[in-house]
Order: sequence, then C-alpha cells, then structure tokens
Amino acid sequence: MSSLSIPVNRALDVICLGRAGVDLYAHEENVDMEDVSGFDKHVGGSPANIAVALSKLGAKVGLISCVSDDSLGRYVCSYLKSLDVDLTGMKIDDTGSRTSLAITEMKADDCEVVIYRNNAADLSLSIEQIDKSYIAQAKMLLVSGTALSTSPSREAALSAIRYARETDTVVVLDVDYRAYSWRSPEDSSLYYQLAASLSDVVIGNREEFDVMELLYKNINEETARDDDKTAAHYLQGATQVVIMKAGEYGSKVYTQDGKKFEQGIFPVDVKKPFGAGDSFAGALMFFLLQGAALEESVKMGAASAAINVSRKSCTDAMPTRQELADFIHSYETA
Amino acid sequence: MSSLSIPVNRALDVICLGRAGVDLYAHEENVDMEDVSGFDKHVGGSPANIAVALSKLGAKVGLISCVSDDSLGRYVCSYLKSLDVDLTGMKIDDTGSRTSLAITEMKADDCEVVIYRNNAADLSLSIEQIDKSYIAQAKMLLVSGTALSTSPSREAALSAIRYARETDTVVVLDVDYRAYSWRSPEDSSLYYQLAASLSDVVIGNREEFDVMELLYKNINEETARDDDKTAAHYLQGATQVVIMKAGEYGSKVYTQDGKKFEQGIFPVDVKKPFGAGDSFAGALMFFLLQGAALEESVKMGAASAAINVSRKSCTDAMPTRQELADFIHSYETA
Amino acid sequence: MSSLSIPVNRALDVICLGRAGVDLYAHEENVDMEDVSGFDKHVGGSPANIAVALSKLGAKVGLISCVSDDSLGRYVCSYLKSLDVDLTGMKIDDTGSRTSLAITEMKADDCEVVIYRNNAADLSLSIEQIDKSYIAQAKMLLVSGTALSTSPSREAALSAIRYARETDTVVVLDVDYRAYSWRSPEDSSLYYQLAASLSDVVIGNREEFDVMELLYKNINEETARDDDKTAAHYLQGATQVVIMKAGEYGSKVYTQDGKKFEQGIFPVDVKKPFGAGDSFAGALMFFLLQGAALEESVKMGAASAAINVSRKSCTDAMPTRQELADFIHSYETA
Amino acid sequence: MSSLSIPVNRALDVICLGRAGVDLYAHEENVDMEDVSGFDKHVGGSPANIAVALSKLGAKVGLISCVSDDSLGRYVCSYLKSLDVDLTGMKIDDTGSRTSLAITEMKADDCEVVIYRNNAADLSLSIEQIDKSYIAQAKMLLVSGTALSTSPSREAALSAIRYARETDTVVVLDVDYRAYSWRSPEDSSLYYQLAASLSDVVIGNREEFDVMELLYKNINEETARDDDKTAAHYLQGATQVVIMKAGEYGSKVYTQDGKKFEQGIFPVDVKKPFGAGDSFAGALMFFLLQGAALEESVKMGAASAAINVSRKSCTDAMPTRQELADFIHSYETA
Repeated sequence: MSSLSIPVNRALDVICLGRAGVDLYAHEENVDMEDVSGFDKHVGGSPANIAVALSKLGAKVGLISCVSDDSLGRYVCSYLKSLDVDLTGMKIDDTGSRTSLAITEMKADDCEVVIYRNNAADLSLSIEQIDKSYIAQAKMLLVSGTALSTSPSREAALSAIRYARETDTVVVLDVDYRAYSWRSPEDSSLYYQLAASLSDVVIGNREEFDVMELLYKNINEETARDDDKTAAHYLQGATQVVIMKAGEYGSKVYTQDGKKFEQGIFPVDVKKPFGAGDSFAGALMFFLLQGAALEESVKMGAASAAINVSRKSCTDAMPTRQELADFIHSYETA
Repeated sequence: MSSLSIPVNRALDVICLGRAGVDLYAHEENVDMEDVSGFDKHVGGSPANIAVALSKLGAKVGLISCVSDDSLGRYVCSYLKSLDVDLTGMKIDDTGSRTSLAITEMKADDCEVVIYRNNAADLSLSIEQIDKSYIAQAKMLLVSGTALSTSPSREAALSAIRYARETDTVVVLDVDYRAYSWRSPEDSSLYYQLAASLSDVVIGNREEFDVMELLYKNINEETARDDDKTAAHYLQGATQVVIMKAGEYGSKVYTQDGKKFEQGIFPVDVKKPFGAGDSFAGALMFFLLQGAALEESVKMGAASAAINVSRKSCTDAMPTRQELADFIHSYETA
Repeated sequence: MSSLSIPVNRALDVICLGRAGVDLYAHEENVDMEDVSGFDKHVGGSPANIAVALSKLGAKVGLISCVSDDSLGRYVCSYLKSLDVDLTGMKIDDTGSRTSLAITEMKADDCEVVIYRNNAADLSLSIEQIDKSYIAQAKMLLVSGTALSTSPSREAALSAIRYARETDTVVVLDVDYRAYSWRSPEDSSLYYQLAASLSDVVIGNREEFDVMELLYKNINEETARDDDKTAAHYLQGATQVVIMKAGEYGSKVYTQDGKKFEQGIFPVDVKKPFGAGDSFAGALMFFLLQGAALEESVKMGAASAAINVSRKSCTDAMPTRQELADFIHSYETA
Repeated sequence: MSSLSIPVNRALDVICLGRAGVDLYAHEENVDMEDVSGFDKHVGGSPANIAVALSKLGAKVGLISCVSDDSLGRYVCSYLKSLDVDLTGMKIDDTGSRTSLAITEMKADDCEVVIYRNNAADLSLSIEQIDKSYIAQAKMLLVSGTALSTSPSREAALSAIRYARETDTVVVLDVDYRAYSWRSPEDSSLYYQLAASLSDVVIGNREEFDVMELLYKNINEETARDDDKTAAHYLQGATQVVIMKAGEYGSKVYTQDGKKFEQGIFPVDVKKPFGAGDSFAGALMFFLLQGAALEESVKMGAASAAINVSRKSCTDAMPTRQELADFIHSYETA
C-alpha cells in the first residue's frame, strides 16, 4: 500500500532532528506546583524521545540537535550515549543559549508545564552545522516541526530535508506544533507546507493540520475539518503517506494511491498526558524499516504509544521490541 | 520555444515585489564623495525600477512594497502613482523603519554606494500583508531575491510565490543578490533554491548562480562555472527558463526543453554602472506578455538595458515602447 | 560609630529590590549532575533571600521584583506571601520572560550551578513600575547590584535609589556581581560607582570591589587589593559604611568618620557554599533597624550567616530571632 | 558671578562628545519633499556643529564620536579635519552601523526632517573607547544629551563625564532631547538628572527641562513651568550655571549663588529653523574660556546664534571671531 522506497545498506536507520532537553516531573501526583516538593529528572524533547524509542527497539539512530555547554547539556548527551544514540550531529553551544527545559506538574487535568526556551540551544542550530554526507548515511530523516519555528534552526531543518531528498533518505515530518515558538500562525502555515511538500510521510493531529492549512483560505473553507480532503491536499508530489492522529479516537492513515485505513487505540490505564506521539512515531518508523506493511507499522505505533502512557516517565517508558511483542500478544489473547 | 503559459484577462500585467526607495546621485561626475556638493533625488530599488520600466512600456503594473511614513515615503509613492503604478499592495510603516536609501558617487570606476538599510521599511513586509486575491489579478509576479534575505519579508515573498503558483500567475525570480542583507551565504543558497524551484523564469548573473549553488557542493565542483550544467540543474519542475546575464558579454538563455541561445549587448556610451538589469527584466517581461517569442523578448531586454545605461538616471531613463522601437530601428539600419 | 539616620514611623522596615526565583537543589549530595535523580524546590535569588531573612527575624519587608505569569511565578509569590513579605511591588509578566531559575549540584567542591536567565522576568522590571510613594514607606531600601546589569531593570534600580535619597530612605547596596549579566566589566564599574555614590551602605567582597574600581585605573594601581584605600575611596558623599566580606576570613567594616573594625566568622559545619551573604545582609539590616550598634549588627550578620550555611536549604535556613539568640548564647558559653 | 573654575595649560580647549553626521538640505526653498529635485551636502549633528563653531572662533577643539567606514564617514572626517578639529577620539565603525543622516526640506513652516538613525554609528560608541587621559587634556567637555539615549553610547557619555569630574575638566551638558532615541520619557528623565548633577553648566529649553523633571512629580506640580524653581532645583552640588533657552524670547541664566539675568535675541532675517542652539553653545563656551564674564559670554552666544540662522547652511554658517565682532559692532551702532 505504501510506496515508500527505503534505501538499504546505510550505517544509520534514522536520524532525528530537533530539540533534546531536560524534563522535570513533579514528585507528587495531582498536586499544584506551589505544593510540589521537587522534581524527577528525565531527558525529553520530542525528537530525542523518538530517537530513544527507536534505539530501545533496536534501531541504529542518530540525533542532530544542540545543548548548552554545562552539566545539564552533558547529562542529556551522556543519557543518549548510554542508549547508543549517535551524537555526531550534536552541537555543544557555549554562547549563552540554554538546553531546552520543561518543568511539569503531574496532574490528570489542567496539568501546567512551564517551558524554559528563551534562547534555546536547539534553536541555535544553523545550516552550517548540517552535514550532507551524514544525512546520506541514514535510511530515514525524522524532522520535528518545532525546529522550523525560528531562524537559524529553520534553515538547518530545511537544508537537512533537501539533503535527504537529494540522497534518497526518506523524510518523515512530525508536525509537533508549538504556537509560542512562532512569530505568527501564517508563518507556521507557510513553512509547514514547504516542509510537507518535501516529505514522504507527514504525521500530525487535526489541530496541527488546521494550522498548516491557514494560508489556503479557500481550501480551508471547503475542507473545514474534513480529514479526507485535508489528506488529499497533501498527498501530492513527494508525499506518500499522511497520518492524522486523533488521540483517543486513534489515527486515520492515507496514502497517495488513494487508500485509507483507521487504527484504534489500545486501552490502558493512562499515567500521564504525553509521550504517546513520540512513542507512536518511533515504533511506526522502526517497523517500516523492518519491511512491515504500513498497517502493521501503524498498529505497532499505537501499541507502543499505549505502553508509554501507561508508565510514569517518557524516555524511560519507551518499550523494547520484546515488551512490544508481549503487549500485543497479551492484548490479542485477552 | 518557451512553454510559459501566461494567463489572459487579468486586471494587471505584472506585480513586482520587493524594495522601493530613494536613490541620491552625486551632482558631480567622477568626483569623490568628499568633494561632491550634493545629490539629485530619484526613485530606486530594483523591483520599483522594473515596475517603472514596465509601466513606461505600457504595461499595467502593481508594486508590493513598504516605505516609511514620512516625506520620503510619500515621495516614492507619489512618483510611482504618477507613472500609473498600482499601489494597492504598498504598506506605509510608522514603527521606526526607514525607506531604503542609496547615496552614490557617479564615477566610472570604484564608484562607491552607501546604503542605508538598517531596519529597512521594505524588509518589514510580512506574510499577513500579502493578499492572495491581489496576486491572482496579475499575469506575472516578479520577485526580487533581496526580499528573501530576512524575516518577515522572506515569508511575504515566499507566500506570494506560492499564491502565484496556486493561481497560475507566472513567477519570475530576479536573483538580485546583496550579500550584506543575508545572515550567511548558506542561507542565501537555501532560499534561492527554494524560490527558484517554484519560479517559471530565473534571471541572474554567474556570481549569483554561484551563491545559489553553494549548498550543492558536489554539483558545484562538477559544474564550477559551467553555465550549461548550472542551467540544467535549475530547469526542472516548475522552472521553464533560465537566463544567465554576463554584463558586456550579453546573456545566455536556456529552456526546459533543452534549447539554448545567446544574446549580445547593444554597444552604447555607458553613463552609469547600474539600471541595466532592471531595464532588461522589464522589457523582457513586457514582450513575453505581448506574446513575443523568447528570443525577441530577450533582444528587447538587451536593447532596453542599453538605452538605460546610456542615460544618466535610472527610473527616468527607462525607455517608452516608441523609444525602444526607434533604438532597434536605428541600430538595425546602422 | 555609624552615622546612619534611619527614619521612624514607616509602614515597612525594608524594601528589597531585584530578582526572586526558583532554586532547584540536587537530591543527592556529592554526586555529579548526570547522576542526580532529581531536585528539591526552593525559592531563591539574593534579594528574595534577604527579604525572607528579614521577615523571619521579625521585620516588615517588601520585595520589588518580577516573576512570569505561570505556576512557578505563582509558587514564588505564594511562598513569599506565606512569610508575610509584602508583594505590592511584584510585577507578573506575561510577555514571554521567565522566572529566574538556578539548578544546582550539591557538592563541596566544583559545585556547578546552571542558571536559566535568558529573558529573565526580574530584568524586565522598568522605571515605570517603580512607585516613589512606596519607596517612601520604607526605612531602608536594599538593592541587589544584579538589578543594575541590563536595561530596563537598570533604570528601575537607579530610579528606586534616587527616590530613596529624596525620601530619606536609607540605601544599602549589595554588590552581588554576576559577570554573565553585564555587557562589559567597564559598564559594571560605571554603574556600581554611580549606585555606590548614592548609597549609605555598600556591601561586597574583594573581587566585587575590584570590578567596581576597574575604571579608576590610576587608583587601581595604587590600591591594588588594599582594602583600606578601596574603602576610603567609597566613603565620600552619601556613603557612610563600607563592608568588605572575605569569606572564611570574616569581614572588614569601615565608616566615613575613619573608623574600622573586623568581624570573624562563627565556625560551623558547612553544608552548602551559598546563602551566607544574604543571611548576613538580612541580619545586619535587622539589627541596625533595632538601633543596635554597627559592631553588634555585623556580629549578628556573621552569626546568621553561620547558621544558614550549616543548614541544607537557603531561604528555609534563615534563622528566627530566637534561633539567632540561642546560637550566640551557645557560642559564647561554649 | 559664575564660579566656574576652568583649568589652564591644557592642549585642548573643548572636547565635544556625541553625534557627527551628514545633513542633506533641499535645493529648493519652500517646496515639499515630493517636488524637491535634490539636496546640498553638509556636515551636521549638534556636537559636530558646536565643535565647528568653536574651531571657527579660534578654539582648539576635539570631537569624540563615531562614523561608518564608508565614503560618507570619510567625508565627515575630512571636513572636520579641514577645520582643525582633533579626531583622536573619532571611531570608524565597520560592523554595519551608518553615519547619522538627516534629510530636510527648507521650509519656513512645517519643515519635515527625515532622520536615518537606525543603528546609528555614533550610538555604537562604548565606554571602552573613552580615554581618561584624553579627557584630561581638555579644559571643557561638551556632552550632547542624545548620546545618553541608548547603550552603549550612554555609558560612553556617562564615563566621559565622570572622567571629566575626576580631572577637573569643566562639564557642559546640552540637553539636546530627541524623543525618538529613548525607550521612555522616564528613562530620559533619570539619565538627564544623573548627568545634570555631574555637570557644571546645563543648557536646555523649557520643554527639555519638563522632560528632565518628569520623575519629580511633586516638584513638577509645584514648579509647573516655573523657570525659577526649575533652575533652583538643578543648581545644587556640581551645577553652577543653568541656561534656559526660549527661542525668540531669548534666554534666562541662573547661577548657584542665586543670581539671574536674561538675554534677548538679536533680530535678523531667519533663513532656517536650526543651528541657533549649536552656534549659541559654541560662542558661549569660547568666551567663557577667554575669561569673559558669564553675561558677556551669553550675549556673544546670542549674537552667534543670530548670525547662524541668518545664513543658509549650518556648520558653514558658524561665524569667525571677526564676523562676530563686526556683527556686534554694527548692531550696537545701529
């Protein structure tokens, strides 16, 4: 069904591009920030999470990112190295930027996350740091859309995508829209469209596709929240697969040859409201790389997401291939 | 030979996008700035010049630009209006930016131009100011590459190009590279490539194509200064025509169907070292819009350039259609 | 000995001006950041610490500062309110700045602190937020020198000092020099000298006075590290008292009438390398406000510092008046 | 009457600090900018004008300023050198700033001036460029208040003033308030007050003193436009003389010993609305340096202003000592 043409015989399975940072999770669950006594320390940031998900499943993965030249930056690097993530493309910045940091309550509802991303290290990545020969060593490139939000990271991400196209590396765009990073929604729409038109696979949720469509005012009216029309709009040129995530309603998957299928979620006891998307993307790519069919790969993505949200942390909660197999087995025999 | 498909029945022939400003030319010729007594005042800026060139030939033309809310901004607008340039897309900025300004010696050699473009009004143009329905009213969109050099003007230019593609407006990219406007040559290369891949016609000189090719290191080695290979690289997808200008050596013109021809210059007594390119682009587009063949249109461009540089000012030196016919006639009967 | 003229019958004893933020202390002691499992949450920032020190001793204290409009900002405010710190002068910023944040190892040696102060909320405080009538309600104004490091906080701090002079509020300048906040050491020297010349009491260590003297190159040569000459230089005009802190060597105190005395430290088992200075400043001001002699006040400052560093946290470790009395008593009867 | 103590035996009479730039005057008088054909080129900028005024009267004068590294910067320097202005303190900036530029209509009423001061070279001057030993070589330092408007020029100006105080160089502050250069009127008020308190002579008009008083809300109410009270407020500490200019109504002069006198204007046929203040300041300082009484010096300032505005240009219109003597003579014998 998918007509992705994945190159073989390359040193790396996937290179992820975008932020890597520190997540601080409140010790106490269901307690307001004022009354939290402290935090547990984890590595976070969507592309770093995806890299970890892939590595734990057994893929060879690299990360193009930037952290600050201090003990938190060293922590991020040493954690990723311990999971065999290749850091050839990791820049250490000593000009005053800081490693991306999120400090979060652990509440089922109204969970507030405070983000420290003023002069974020990852957004200081520039085109000059992107090495075409490194991109050429990977079968897939995963780009987090947040890397497109400001210059010079924007140009780093766009050039990585173009290098990938030139070297037949499959491009996966995870929209990962964070409004606060962008000058205006119109800018988001423009760059997401440019990046999507150069990507083989585009993954987002309905709200993210709405932002992407902002500049297509006519189309937007017609398609308003019509997933089929939205998908059709993007399935042109390079783009082979569009995956529209809808949280508890699962995902809709469209391919350029006009096919469509849906994948539900695996019901679990949810421990936290994040990590699902990154876990999904990691398992999806892993199984595509294994030669699995698109349907099977999406199903494994959904299972991986379920496992992740049923556990407390995020990177540490990414399942191994055995855990994923066990989960599917227990589910299917239940 | 050209397979440009120019729409008919539109209110405007061409919309030009980019800077419009003031040029101050030294009173005295061949005198150093220290000893110049004063300056003559003209409207300038490449896309404004091209708009004037088109208008004087008889085309209906609009300009998307921005000037500051002061007497110099008003002067630019009133001059353009007097030449019937449509200013629907002209923004008047009152936040502290200033109308682009160039102060120049008038010397045959080592002619120094001092550019005042810190917080330039035209670079404050943003995507929110670009109206898709306005772009849809024009047969052609001329984009000056300098508009791509910094945000938010960059996004304004890119979105205008995309709107043009969606509405079948023919896109002409005039590379117009000014190194001082860009963060890095790598950024220039990235955005010029993106813009070129969405343009029907790309016009530049050898140095400009070198900058565009910077990110194609392999290609660059191969093609180093090989005009044919450079042109072939760009003549893909949307791009139908590549015009490579070489000053006194004339121009090489390539089309996507693999054809190529050259056009020499019309020898005249040169009065100043600028204006040729804008005059060329204006006449080229005008004759394409008239249905002339590409060869004929390029020839008229070359003649118009010759007339312009043989006169002292720049906008005022743009020829009328009659002057152009007379010039060609006198040349061919000489 | 001191000729400070402290006003009476005012609603507040002290207003502190400068940063208030969050300190995250590593759970594990003597462990590198990479291996720390998490952090304990505390309120921090030198002027906030001093406000807490004063409040715990029984003074009526206000804080002029700014935090971000999020759960961490609310935490800082609610903690300070719970200790009866008046927050009339606290600004809540929602334009993208972030509450000052420090993440620290807990190591005896080479203890690294990672500071998140890009677009720090407290440095967004501007002159327009300083209310002269509020300053007039306090007997003393404590200004942290870091508030002088960048505009617009610099102007807020300078105007507060000038308002204090106009309304006979005693000004205490705690140099609190952090090189990373300043454009250049020369700028530091200029503003510290301006602020010191308008302050009644100046507190700093030798390294801080070295920075202050940078622009007095002649003087600097002469006095190089000569505490007596340095003090004499500052004891002019408004400045009545100069206190030069020297860590384990205690403090030297100079007054404008030419007197000088030294105060040693109270030896304790040190648990952490910070908090001493803030605890010292708080107790010093408190006892001056009680009408104690300068010698007695400095001694109580030293005792308070000793108590603070013998405890693990910083704000929570500030002693009450009873604890201070007990400490002195046990020390003197030991 | 004045108790200024002017040092003797110094290499320079006056050092002026602040902007030096280019003024472009419309060729045609009483014509709107749209219809002006061109401009005459002059050197301008208040402190540069004052330096020229002093030099033409026969004083030895230096200028601390900055221009851009281009032909306009070279023009400014070569013009000033030709008038024997010492340029030891002139910085040539090549980082993208531009020489201050003013383009003006020549109209009796509603004369619009367009100012190009985005990233102005003179405002890039920083404290590191101020040499105390150079300041020590001058009898007087003239500071233009506009140099205080933004960092790092602000710190350059403040440090120059402090160096002058340390080396007994007399400080003259010309308020020269331009609202567009400042972040807020409150900031203007703060720095003008700081600078005025360190100056021997303060020169401004009523509107400028209003801005200076903004932060003294109580005082402001009382004195609202009461020149005597305003002057009394500033005549403290270092400040010996306050001169309040009132255009066609002449000037009021106050000294710290409580004296006051007024000086009318010399009626002439006014050719342009600027240059008067700079000409006034230059002649005032020149005659003070000659040992003339304050009344005599102010009178010569008024005469010099009259001569300047009766001529078309600004720097070129500064009178020589002989012209000034002739003017006074003709006036007194008229």
